[in-house]
Amino acid sequence: MNKPLRIAMFGYGFMGKAHSNAYHKVARFFPELKYRPELQVLCARDREKATEFAKTWGYAEVETDWRKVVERDDIDVIDICSPNHTHFEIALAAAKNGKWVLCEKPLAMNVREAEEMAAAVEEAGVPNMVWFNYRRVPAIALARQLVDEKRIGRAFHYRGTYLQDWTIAQDVPQGGAALWRLDAAVAGSGVTGDLLAHSIDTAMWLNGPITSVVADTETFIKERVHQDTGQVQPVSIDDACMFLARFANGSMGTFESTRYARGRKNYNTFEMNGADGSVFFDLEDPQYLDFFEHTKTSGEKVEDHLTGWRRIHVTNFEHPYMDRWWVPGCTIGYEHTFIHALADFLAGVESGQPAQPNFRDALQTQRVCDAVLASAKSRSWVETGVDSAKAAVTS
Amino acid sequence: MNKPLRIAMFGYGFMGKAHSNAYHKVARFFPELKYRPELQVLCARDREKATEFAKTWGYAEVETDWRKVVERDDIDVIDICSPNHTHFEIALAAAKNGKWVLCEKPLAMNVREAEEMAAAVEEAGVPNMVWFNYRRVPAIALARQLVDEKRIGRAFHYRGTYLQDWTIAQDVPQGGAALWRLDAAVAGSGVTGDLLAHSIDTAMWLNGPITSVVADTETFIKERVHQDTGQVQPVSIDDACMFLARFANGSMGTFESTRYARGRKNYNTFEMNGADGSVFFDLEDPQYLDFFEHTKTSGEKVEDHLTGWRRIHVTNFEHPYMDRWWVPGCTIGYEHTFIHALADFLAGVESGQPAQPNFRDALQTQRVCDAVLASAKSRSWVETGVDSAKAAVTS
Amino acid sequence: MNKPLRIAMFGYGFMGKAHSNAYHKVARFFPELKYRPELQVLCARDREKATEFAKTWGYAEVETDWRKVVERDDIDVIDICSPNHTHFEIALAAAKNGKWVLCEKPLAMNVREAEEMAAAVEEAGVPNMVWFNYRRVPAIALARQLVDEKRIGRAFHYRGTYLQDWTIAQDVPQGGAALWRLDAAVAGSGVTGDLLAHSIDTAMWLNGPITSVVADTETFIKERVHQDTGQVQPVSIDDACMFLARFANGSMGTFESTRYARGRKNYNTFEMNGADGSVFFDLEDPQYLDFFEHTKTSGEKVEDHLTGWRRIHVTNFEHPYMDRWWVPGCTIGYEHTFIHALADFLAGVESGQPAQPNFRDALQTQRVCDAVLASAKSRSWVETGVDSAKAAVTS
Amino acid sequence: MNKPLRIAMFGYGFMGKAHSNAYHKVARFFPELKYRPELQVLCARDREKATEFAKTWGYAEVETDWRKVVERDDIDVIDICSPNHTHFEIALAAAKNGKWVLCEKPLAMNVREAEEMAAAVEEAGVPNMVWFNYRRVPAIALARQLVDEKRIGRAFHYRGTYLQDWTIAQDVPQGGAALWRLDAAVAGSGVTGDLLAHSIDTAMWLNGPITSVVADTETFIKERVHQDTGQVQPVSIDDACMFLARFANGSMGTFESTRYARGRKNYNTFEMNGADGSVFFDLEDPQYLDFFEHTKTSGEKVEDHLTGWRRIHVTNFEHPYMDRWWVPGCTIGYEHTFIHALADFLAGVESGQPAQPNFRDALQTQRVCDAVLASAKSRSWVETGVDSAKAAVTS
Repeated sequence: MNKPLRIAMFGYGFMGKAHSNAYHKVARFFPELKYRPELQVLCARDREKATEFAKTWGYAEVETDWRKVVERDDIDVIDICSPNHTHFEIALAAAKNGKWVLCEKPLAMNVREAEEMAAAVEEAGVPNMVWFNYRRVPAIALARQLVDEKRIGRAFHYRGTYLQDWTIAQDVPQGGAALWRLDAAVAGSGVTGDLLAHSIDTAMWLNGPITSVVADTETFIKERVHQDTGQVQPVSIDDACMFLARFANGSMGTFESTRYARGRKNYNTFEMNGADGSVFFDLEDPQYLDFFEHTKTSGEKVEDHLTGWRRIHVTNFEHPYMDRWWVPGCTIGYEHTFIHALADFLAGVESGQPAQPNFRDALQTQRVCDAVLASAKSRSWVETGVDSAKAAVTS
Repeated sequence: MNKPLRIAMFGYGFMGKAHSNAYHKVARFFPELKYRPELQVLCARDREKATEFAKTWGYAEVETDWRKVVERDDIDVIDICSPNHTHFEIALAAAKNGKWVLCEKPLAMNVREAEEMAAAVEEAGVPNMVWFNYRRVPAIALARQLVDEKRIGRAFHYRGTYLQDWTIAQDVPQGGAALWRLDAAVAGSGVTGDLLAHSIDTAMWLNGPITSVVADTETFIKERVHQDTGQVQPVSIDDACMFLARFANGSMGTFESTRYARGRKNYNTFEMNGADGSVFFDLEDPQYLDFFEHTKTSGEKVEDHLTGWRRIHVTNFEHPYMDRWWVPGCTIGYEHTFIHALADFLAGVESGQPAQPNFRDALQTQRVCDAVLASAKSRSWVETGVDSAKAAVTS
Repeated sequence: MNKPLRIAMFGYGFMGKAHSNAYHKVARFFPELKYRPELQVLCARDREKATEFAKTWGYAEVETDWRKVVERDDIDVIDICSPNHTHFEIALAAAKNGKWVLCEKPLAMNVREAEEMAAAVEEAGVPNMVWFNYRRVPAIALARQLVDEKRIGRAFHYRGTYLQDWTIAQDVPQGGAALWRLDAAVAGSGVTGDLLAHSIDTAMWLNGPITSVVADTETFIKERVHQDTGQVQPVSIDDACMFLARFANGSMGTFESTRYARGRKNYNTFEMNGADGSVFFDLEDPQYLDFFEHTKTSGEKVEDHLTGWRRIHVTNFEHPYMDRWWVPGCTIGYEHTFIHALADFLAGVESGQPAQPNFRDALQTQRVCDAVLASAKSRSWVETGVDSAKAAVTS
Repeated sequence: MNKPLRIAMFGYGFMGKAHSNAYHKVARFFPELKYRPELQVLCARDREKATEFAKTWGYAEVETDWRKVVERDDIDVIDICSPNHTHFEIALAAAKNGKWVLCEKPLAMNVREAEEMAAAVEEAGVPNMVWFNYRRVPAIALARQLVDEKRIGRAFHYRGTYLQDWTIAQDVPQGGAALWRLDAAVAGSGVTGDLLAHSIDTAMWLNGPITSVVADTETFIKERVHQDTGQVQPVSIDDACMFLARFANGSMGTFESTRYARGRKNYNTFEMNGADGSVFFDLEDPQYLDFFEHTKTSGEKVEDHLTGWRRIHVTNFEHPYMDRWWVPGCTIGYEHTFIHALADFLAGVESGQPAQPNFRDALQTQRVCDAVLASAKSRSWVETGVDSAKAAVTS
């Protein structure tokens, strides 16, 4: 017995496309799910563009007034892919109206908003999730599995980077529909919310709460033309951010994100070093997890002439999610992470074991982001306030 | 003005799934195409499994008698994904009934069949294509672009391998619905038709006609249980095949395919060395094309302290097909090659510039496959009979 | 006309072996040098071990009293490979006696010692060098060449790591002849002086002065048996150290070193990102420099479908030092860096253009190390006090 | 008690340098050896160049008449590094005079010469070795160890390539002192003797006798200026050679060598696939052996989510030869293979367990080379005549 699930999508940008694709494909590859997404409404301010998008992606209707959408009875799910500064208001209204709420990351403009949003969905008792899609890269899910299997052991080090290079040119404008990520008033922050939020979510999922940080940010290009006004204006986002961290488990972390690393296009990497093993991942090579195994779980002596980093091509049927796709050796890509996230979310609703990260989980990541920005400003170590006990639930 | 295109799919296996996915996605990512695939009929002998598949993938009907399907007026396209020994009969009937014909590779059981099939579609004047999907890997299409841009120069060497490891165990059975690729009566040959056919198609696309070969094949495991009968029977396919080749342009080729290369899951690689540059590709890392540039086209002196293999992450908007997907640095996967092939096919019909490889192109690959098997038997060099003039058209 | 150069070597450990090998080989591969090292005295406290070493390596004599050696008239060069806490006293006495002084890194136990040592060799007017041998890895020297050729452009980011994993086990003892690097009283610090000093020297050579840092250190295993006493004692060195940095040119730096990164054996890496290009190096793959070129110096448009990281196999005759060795494609190894350093030193004395880094250059690195340790203690940003004008001379 | 071993070196080219370096270093790093090489005579026709070389490398004397050298009583070892066409005559005379004979590869111009040479040293009862130095790359020696430890299992496939790119330009001359490798009258053959001989020696060492081959060769540039005469003359060597092979153990082999693979400088690779594991090696990355382990020797079940190619950094103390050099993570280079070969040779004489490959072993490789060239000429499969029983002794 399939249950239709009527979706209202907010936004038609890059993320709107990725999510729409996921709604179309999830039932083909996860046919056991009862919920069947139906693309009901595409909501955006620009009716012309919204209509074009709706036509391509098969949305039944277009709406420009978001308030109307959240109040409609024939909508089950609100999916927020609009710019960051809109998340708060939409999510609160959606929760109030009893809708399920899915929200792109970062959850909010700051911790204050995020706290209120988490409280709202909990009070309303509605299913909710934040699209930290990279947890659903099979290789990253495998890393988590190795942690759970105790193959890493006592953690000593974690290092995360998220490097891109697309804003180096002085003549890249800021703001507007396409480039709102460069406008602090709309995005909240620069690389911290856009890229580091991913790194932090992954790090805490794999290695537990981050308790304190010391950070530094930089804006390399000080002024840019604004897309909408055509005026040269100061750039208010962080172009780059680096920080040192301490985790609750005593391990040390280094993090860095930037859009000024020439040659790095989507270099979202992490490495974790423990007493018994290490893992390394790079999103530009998402089909691999590099694993160095020191202690054999069977207790056998490690053979020193055989040790080496093992490059696991994460495409076996035994790997997370991979039994849903093709055959061993055949890769999947970026868009599949959204399908997996959606499948996990739907399965979580069905089973009563909600998928993660939900709003409260994402709030923890927001705490670290805010602490990072505060530290860069105060030039001192800052406690994140991540609730270790609650964060642990994430695991 | 969109034109619906009613598809009849033959087979529900691995390929049926990949093609069905392509029919669903093509209009989302290539919205400018006029033809809009509609999944009309799923045709297969096992009604129960066919029905299950049709439900998951949204086929309107199920049919078990293939002859009925090819004669129906409400079908525009016959897509043949059933085992190799069925291609011939279905394709001929489809052409005779004026259907467009898409056929999985290898086109036929042998050259004799392939010749007849190519003649049939040409006589009927129907659009036709063989799914050598790897031409549509962006990195392979980029290799072809580099050849066209004269960046490789006079060709000296070509080497192709296609290595897998899934049949090493003695207890893998042969035959039946799932394992017909191990049954020569159904598959025609072993790795030669299954894997080498891909390597040969790519090689001739990039480097022109193969004119002569000397080959060797082996069946490592001599007897296996047959899936259907439960009887131990001799294995009649080639488990492995290697050959030396000469191309019409004077360059030398080495080729090898096997299902006995432990640790190689989908190791479809090629390397081409020319006077001015070289390229290397590996399907396990499909997001990369490795390129060594010797002569700068601008005529500048090569700076010897800067030479090196360049690892091109083929995800820029400037790369083949990649402007249809996400943003630079985001990878796509195996299934996308089918979507690209379908889009090229439909665009070719619309424009009157048919996409390749069509049946006649695939016949050339069949000629090489047959020559390889003949050489392995005769233990001597064999001329392929590839028509250099016609094969060149492929380019 | 060859001039014999009589060497007195202090220490017979790992470094004594590496240096002795360099003295034997330098004239074979740099035959144009006038100075010809002669191994005159091996000086160490343990006469038996010293005698064994002297025999293997061809030293004419053994001496256990270092004061006698620095005062002998028949010695030209004092090479200090003994533990860190001995550098100061020996170097001062050597300079006072007019000897040339070569010293292993880190130069001193702290800035105060290093300042006095730099002043002493300058006052005495004697040739001096500190063995930061990695500057002489051909790939690192090539990185410097690319900087000088303006191929990196305005610097945005620098990241350096030096990761090892050999002290993870609780039962590794500390101190004694073999493990003095784990004894703070002898080594001065842990990974900061041992590993980070290399990273800092390379960083400032490539990217100029580091002006401020914020750091964190950790000692993961709190107590170990002392090799000499057999007693369990607190561990006083830093097992791991990470820091953020700002360079005088405005770029941002992250640095990390540890002996607790399971699977990393000698992972001394750096990456530098500039507006026009990036470089990456890893000492475990020393034959490579990875280079991403964005702006062609000729002013041509970059062809976006050809961009990628170029893996330069630094073994061409055109690469630094490589015309002295074998043929393109043949690698050299760890020991060659010492031969290059020695050849550069001797050539510098001959030409009157002293090789770097000399004692004063190494003092700058010591300043950063001390600032790092101070920052870890104070948990605040610390100015390094590196003299930008003087440090620039290093270049 | 050290025994001096007086060496007479024939030739001062690239190999003369590599061997001379080995004679100097062997006692420093293998001090337990009793034999101590002394560089007595450098023998070559060009007295001026020979004198220069002898001075740099410390040879006591220079001689231009090779016959005098082999008859001198004060010479113990004749080391033949002169061009290939001189090996036969010198080796025979040396053996007749009771000298130990070391010979560069390929042993001879053809099988007939090699047979006579093997018989001569055996009849004379003198220690002898051919410098197939790559057996002494630690990673290749480790591959052999894995074979011996039964970690590869039943062999299915072997593929060897040796690709270079230094003769592509039309204006590279042939012949003369520097380029005799391009002159068939002096070299015997082109890449077959120069490069393939290495690949074949390694292949048979790891995988046993090659029993039959089918080959193809090409000379891409048909005429070149001769270095000595200045005349344009036909090129008589093979520029490239490829062949298929069968091994005595039933496995299949592909081999290829060329000097026309743009971007490949010293790409000497092999891969071996067996039922239980695979290994891959590339001489441009000599510090690594890639190993895929399928069956755990302990009989445990393979964990399918952990399988992957392990990149072994062959620099641990437990790896072949590496306890003689530096510390884990520090690489060695090309020249070390000669030191290892020499150490093994001397240890073999001392122990009475002669090192391999000796002249008779190298004769087997010569058989395969000759069969390859014969097959390329006859365009048919050729039996190599390698004596399986004798070849097995090589192991």
